[in-house]
Amino acid sequence: MSLTTSQTTGNSKTRLTDIAEQAGVSTATVSRVLNGKSSVATETRQAVLAALDILGYERPEKFRNRSAGLVGLVVPELTNPVFPAFAQTIEGLLSQRGYTPLLCTQSPGGTSEDEYIDMLQEHKVDGIVFVAGLHADTQASHTRYDQLRTKGIPLVFINGYAQDIDAPFISCDDLTAMELGVRHLVSLGHHKIGLAIGPQRFITAQRKTEGFKNALHKHLGQDDGDQHVATSLFTVEGGQAAANELLDSGHTAIVCGSDLMALGAVRAAHQRNLKVPEDVSIIGYDDSPLIGFTDPPLTTIRQPVATMSQAAVSGLVSMIESATAPTSELQFHPELIVRNSTGTSPEARLASYRINNN
Amino acid sequence: MSLTTSQTTGNSKTRLTDIAEQAGVSTATVSRVLNGKSSVATETRQAVLAALDILGYERPEKFRNRSAGLVGLVVPELTNPVFPAFAQTIEGLLSQRGYTPLLCTQSPGGTSEDEYIDMLQEHKVDGIVFVAGLHADTQASHTRYDQLRTKGIPLVFINGYAQDIDAPFISCDDLTAMELGVRHLVSLGHHKIGLAIGPQRFITAQRKTEGFKNALHKHLGQDDGDQHVATSLFTVEGGQAAANELLDSGHTAIVCGSDLMALGAVRAAHQRNLKVPEDVSIIGYDDSPLIGFTDPPLTTIRQPVATMSQAAVSGLVSMIESATAPTSELQFHPELIVRNSTGTSPEARLASYRINNN
Repeated sequence: MSLTTSQTTGNSKTRLTDIAEQAGVSTATVSRVLNGKSSVATETRQAVLAALDILGYERPEKFRNRSAGLVGLVVPELTNPVFPAFAQTIEGLLSQRGYTPLLCTQSPGGTSEDEYIDMLQEHKVDGIVFVAGLHADTQASHTRYDQLRTKGIPLVFINGYAQDIDAPFISCDDLTAMELGVRHLVSLGHHKIGLAIGPQRFITAQRKTEGFKNALHKHLGQDDGDQHVATSLFTVEGGQAAANELLDSGHTAIVCGSDLMALGAVRAAHQRNLKVPEDVSIIGYDDSPLIGFTDPPLTTIRQPVATMSQAAVSGLVSMIESATAPTSELQFHPELIVRNSTGTSPEARLASYRINNN
Repeated sequence: MSLTTSQTTGNSKTRLTDIAEQAGVSTATVSRVLNGKSSVATETRQAVLAALDILGYERPEKFRNRSAGLVGLVVPELTNPVFPAFAQTIEGLLSQRGYTPLLCTQSPGGTSEDEYIDMLQEHKVDGIVFVAGLHADTQASHTRYDQLRTKGIPLVFINGYAQDIDAPFISCDDLTAMELGVRHLVSLGHHKIGLAIGPQRFITAQRKTEGFKNALHKHLGQDDGDQHVATSLFTVEGGQAAANELLDSGHTAIVCGSDLMALGAVRAAHQRNLKVPEDVSIIGYDDSPLIGFTDPPLTTIRQPVATMSQAAVSGLVSMIESATAPTSELQFHPELIVRNSTGTSPEARLASYRINNN
C-alpha cells in the first residue's frame, strides 16, 4: 500500500493533471497558459496561476509581472487573526490589479503607524489602505492623514470613521452587529446580557456600545445600558477581565467586541466552573479564520472581510486612476454565525422544566 | 455600579498611571520618557513605548524614529497562523534594531516571491529574511538567491535548507520533533501511528518523514515507515484527506506536519464519529497562537518562534553591519506541548480493563 498521492511524484504529466484539476480546466489549457500563449482568457490564466500557487509549484520565469505601483497596507497587528485575514485578502486583490502591496504591521514597541507613513512616502506609494488605524481613535490627531491627502496620496480607511478626513471609509455596520447579537440572546431567554468591549476612545467601540444599548432598550426595555458594559482591551486577557466583571454582576450572556475577547470570556467562565453555553452564553465578533475550531465552537458576528476588502481596493484603485475621492462611508452588513457557545438561558431552562413537570 | 475601567477616561493623570502600571515603572519615569529626557535607560524607554502601544495611545510626535534602513520579510502566506506569528515577532525585533520591516506576503494568484524580490531590490533593502520560501523546495531553482548574494544583499532563511546558498539558515529540528511526537504516542500504547504530511518536495516534509520513520524503527521496531505516511497539502483540507487515508488503514494515532493539518485530522475523525483522543490521538506541529483554544485543545510540537526569530534578526543585522555570512544551519529544539488531543490507545485501555476485571 502506498499512501503517497500524486502531488509528490514530480512527474510532469501528473503535475499537469494536478494543476488542471485544481484550476478546473483541461490539461491542454494548463499547457497553453504555462507556455505563455496569448489566446487564453485572463480569468483562466489567473485560475491556473492560483492552482500553481496552491499546489506549491514554482511559477515559470515568464510569469514575472512588472508592478503597476506600490500600495501601502497598514494594519495594527497580526495577533488578532482578523488582521492577517484582511491583509491576505487585500494583498491578493491588489496583486490582481497589478499593484505590489507593502504590508506594514505594528507590534508593541515596534515600528509605529507614523514611521510607516514616512517610509511609504519616501518610497512613493500610489496609495495607502489603513485597517483599524489611528483614524479609528477619536482622541488621535488626524493631521497625518490630512497631510497625505494634501500631497494628493489616495487613502482608504477600513473600520473607523472620521468625518474630517477626505477619503472613503469602509466599515462593518456595528449597530446592526449588536442588534443581531442581543436579539439572538433574548430569543434564548437571556435578560441579563453584558457587553465586553475595548477602549471607548475607538469609534468602533463607541458604535458597538451604542448599538448594544439600543438593542437592550428595544428587546428588553432596559435603559440602564451603561450598567451592562465592561470596558477593557480587545485581547484575550481583556475579554477575560471584562467577563469577570460581568459574571460578578450576575450576567448570563456576554457579547464581545472581538473573537479574542470571547475566547477570554470563555476562559473566565471555565475558571469559575461555569459551562458554556449551559451556564453562560458568549458571542464573539469578527468570525476570524479557524474560530469555528474552538472549544466550544464560537457563535460570532461575521465581518464580511472579503466584500469589505474588495470595496477598499476598488475605491483606492479608482482614486489612483481617476483622482476622485468619495468621502462617504460604506457600511457592510454583518452576519450572525450561530455555533455552540450560545444556548437557552438557565432561567428559561428551569421555567421550561417546571412547566413540563406540572 | 460602573464597570468602565480607567483606560477610557482620557484623564491625563489616569493615563500616566495606566502606562506606568503596564510598563512596570513609576509615573515619574513615564513623564520623563514622554518629555524626551535623555537620562532614561534605553530599555526603560522601550518598555514605556510598548506600554503606550499596548494600551493603544498615540505616540508623541518626538518619538518618530529615522529608520536605519529597510529589511524585506518574505512569508508564504498568512492563513497558517504560524506565519503571522513569525512576521509579528520579526517585525518587532527589526524595529528594535532600528530597521523598518517590509512584510511581503503571498496568496494563491497574488504577488510571487520573485516579484517581491524585484520590488525589494528596486527599493534598495539592506537585507531579506525568507520564511519557508522557495529555498525549502528541493525542486525550485536557487538562482534567485545566488543573484541576490552576488549583489552583496544579506539574506537569512527560516525553515528550509539548501547547501548551495551562501547564507545562514535557521530551522526547527524536525528530526527531534518527530521523535518527541512518536515517543509520546508509543508511551500511550499506540503502535499504529501514521504521519500526515505536506508535499515531499519540501525539505521540511522530507526531514519530518525521515524523523518519523527513524522513530517508528527505534520505538516500535517498524521498518515499513512508508506504509504509514500519507502525503497531501499542509492545509486543513490536506490534513483531513491524509487522516482519512490513515484511518482507513487502521491507524489509531496521527502526527501531523502542521497545526492546520491536525485540525483537519480532528475533523476527519469527528466525521467518522470517532472521538479524539478516546478513539484517535492527534498531534499538531507549530503550536500556533490560539491553538490551545481548539476542541479538543491540541497536543502539538512547538516551534520556538521567538528564539528562531531572534537568531534570524541577529544573523541578518550582523551580516548587514559586518558583511560576514556564516553559511551554517542553526537548528532549534522543539518542545512537545501535551494538551488534550492525545490519550491512551484503545487497545491499551482494553488490556487494562481486562487486567482489572480478572
